[in-house]
Amino acid sequence: MGIVVQKYGGTSVAGPERIKNVAQRVCRAAEAGNQVVVVVSAQGDTTDRLLDMAYTISPDPPKRELDMLLATGEQISISLLAMAIDTLGHKVISLTGAQGGILTDERHTKAKIREVNAERIVAELERGCIVIVAGFQGITPSNDITTLGRGGSDTTAVAVAAALKADICEIYTDVSGVYTADPRIVADARLLPKVGYDEMLELASLGALILQPRAVEVAAIYGVPLHVRSSFSDSPGTIVREVKDMEKVVSVTGVASDDNCAQIVLLGVPRHLNALQLVFGMLAEDGINVDMIVKAQSGPNTDNLSFTVQRNDLKAALSAIKQLQGADEWKILANEDVAKVSIVGAGMMTNPGVAAEMFDALANEGIPVELVTTSEIKVSCLVPRDLYKAAVAACHRRFCLSDTNS
Amino acid sequence: MGIVVQKYGGTSVAGPERIKNVAQRVCRAAEAGNQVVVVVSAQGDTTDRLLDMAYTISPDPPKRELDMLLATGEQISISLLAMAIDTLGHKVISLTGAQGGILTDERHTKAKIREVNAERIVAELERGCIVIVAGFQGITPSNDITTLGRGGSDTTAVAVAAALKADICEIYTDVSGVYTADPRIVADARLLPKVGYDEMLELASLGALILQPRAVEVAAIYGVPLHVRSSFSDSPGTIVREVKDMEKVVSVTGVASDDNCAQIVLLGVPRHLNALQLVFGMLAEDGINVDMIVKAQSGPNTDNLSFTVQRNDLKAALSAIKQLQGADEWKILANEDVAKVSIVGAGMMTNPGVAAEMFDALANEGIPVELVTTSEIKVSCLVPRDLYKAAVAACHRRFCLSDTNS
Repeated sequence: MGIVVQKYGGTSVAGPERIKNVAQRVCRAAEAGNQVVVVVSAQGDTTDRLLDMAYTISPDPPKRELDMLLATGEQISISLLAMAIDTLGHKVISLTGAQGGILTDERHTKAKIREVNAERIVAELERGCIVIVAGFQGITPSNDITTLGRGGSDTTAVAVAAALKADICEIYTDVSGVYTADPRIVADARLLPKVGYDEMLELASLGALILQPRAVEVAAIYGVPLHVRSSFSDSPGTIVREVKDMEKVVSVTGVASDDNCAQIVLLGVPRHLNALQLVFGMLAEDGINVDMIVKAQSGPNTDNLSFTVQRNDLKAALSAIKQLQGADEWKILANEDVAKVSIVGAGMMTNPGVAAEMFDALANEGIPVELVTTSEIKVSCLVPRDLYKAAVAACHRRFCLSDTNS
Repeated sequence: MGIVVQKYGGTSVAGPERIKNVAQRVCRAAEAGNQVVVVVSAQGDTTDRLLDMAYTISPDPPKRELDMLLATGEQISISLLAMAIDTLGHKVISLTGAQGGILTDERHTKAKIREVNAERIVAELERGCIVIVAGFQGITPSNDITTLGRGGSDTTAVAVAAALKADICEIYTDVSGVYTADPRIVADARLLPKVGYDEMLELASLGALILQPRAVEVAAIYGVPLHVRSSFSDSPGTIVREVKDMEKVVSVTGVASDDNCAQIVLLGVPRHLNALQLVFGMLAEDGINVDMIVKAQSGPNTDNLSFTVQRNDLKAALSAIKQLQGADEWKILANEDVAKVSIVGAGMMTNPGVAAEMFDALANEGIPVELVTTSEIKVSCLVPRDLYKAAVAACHRRFCLSDTNS
């Protein structure tokens, strides 16, 4: 007998038949003797449909009202799932984010959970109920409805699991777990039975968006073990947890890729401009995330600066930088045809030859590397976009990630 | 400068263009210097669509979860209306029933408002906001979402107006006001510029469902003046308020009709059965409303009992009564081909000839009367259904209701 938190995404509850399937899975966990809390997203494309309605009314709707509107999506799915579980003869209750005690800050449309007041959830569990909590939404101290931004339901589930000191937080999704590389790119990519929080975070933030990075962060802070599983099969999935026992054995865990990036290069920027500070300060103000920053001297008083942004932020970034340029002589170049390929592994920092192995693997395939950045658990290379799948495959081969004993 | 509460029904906010029209009307009231609170129903057929979703999942969904689901309908319309008002440059905020302080009892799907805690509404008005409150929904003392049943938005509006001591509660609908008879039956039916609460209540509960009877009751108790108007035109509409100054002048105000009824006759019921108590007790338990009850002696120890029910309750009523009958000898008759025609007017009680006038008008047209019941402000006759329109017209003519000086 334990406490199990299960999270189901939008595709898992899209339509009455899928809702009934989820209800059966939830009831099995309860029948195994667990106290079960279920966190659910809005059905399928509900959120997009609601956004369409809003933008038909206003080009720039107030964010508080957007949240009021979007929160109806999960309210619909939690009530329908409760009805489906009720037909299977279990006691069940659905709770909105507000009722579930999901307390957030006031940043509408991208609020952060401050605290989970789990009083009501605990009381309903003790009454013998399966408790369904709306994902993605919460309530501010002044009783206004907020949403957590896309993928926020993962974070709701982990935060609830942390507050309840749950034994496991199961994340049901439409893939069967975390792989050594994207199986659509590398045919013999291998399912990872377990992976550390840090590695998961790098894999998640590098385009393998199985789990919301913020959710992994919260899980790491509170030590909530995660279980990433398919909601359409009974395959074993991937456990995400502390890595201690793994890090000495494994070097490279997986290969991640992100083809949604663009490179900006600033050539010959006068050093007195303090370009790093100025450029990245300005982009941060516009909410543009910058990645893979490299700075190098280009002349006695000038520097070259190179970095990447998300491709859909490129236009905004360029126009911000052009304001900065003014009448100066330095050049701005942009390249949309790039992609980022990264090797990730908790054991890498104790294994200095790993980066060299990666460069060698890419060079052997004739893949040029534009930029390199490294952290303790990853090495990222920017490569031409048309070659990034070959780069992923080359790295996957070089580090023998298909071998089950690696 | 006053406080105006406006209520818009589902057809008034069905689609983005209509929402924008409502927004303009709301802003005009604010620009005239009023503090404005708007109560809105769910858009068009949203409630029916949500019910369909529920019944696809479960034949008998838990009522608490139905309320959780249905409440999303108004949450969508209030947020969209807030966005539309925002584009017109007014400060605006939308509030769910819970946020608006609409406190109800625990009877899910047909809850009654116990109290309006208007603290938040008042605070937002004082900040200079137009306040939009979700109709039809509220919150229980244990923080569960309830709905008030069909037409409940009228009641929300009147209860909010009472709590705020509003100067007027404007009910916007798809007809232009209250008429002396159904304009589809009587071509020269006249719009009533004003009508008393009691008369409105009789007219409303007799099939002229422009206003929810419960809303009129609450308005009468708290003395909230109502203004029934069209949301599609600027016609003057009907004021509903205290009748004192009217009752001596006017005798009959209007003619109402209800063709959704059926008659049940019990012949020769043994008196020892206490039929009145037994039959109506049993029907009340099944939630069947009974109307127009007439009891008469039929023999030394037997009675005849005649009454009407709503036509869709007839089957359930008959089967309940058959259980009661057991092996006894008395007879049960049913007649679906009836309709009720009523004359309504606050001045009738001081005018005893009115009922006789009505009977005479019907007799002149050869319309037989099956049952008669009277109250202080109405006389109702049960007539054959195929003749009820003729009966309405005859009464309308007899009491000269088309004359503007009546």
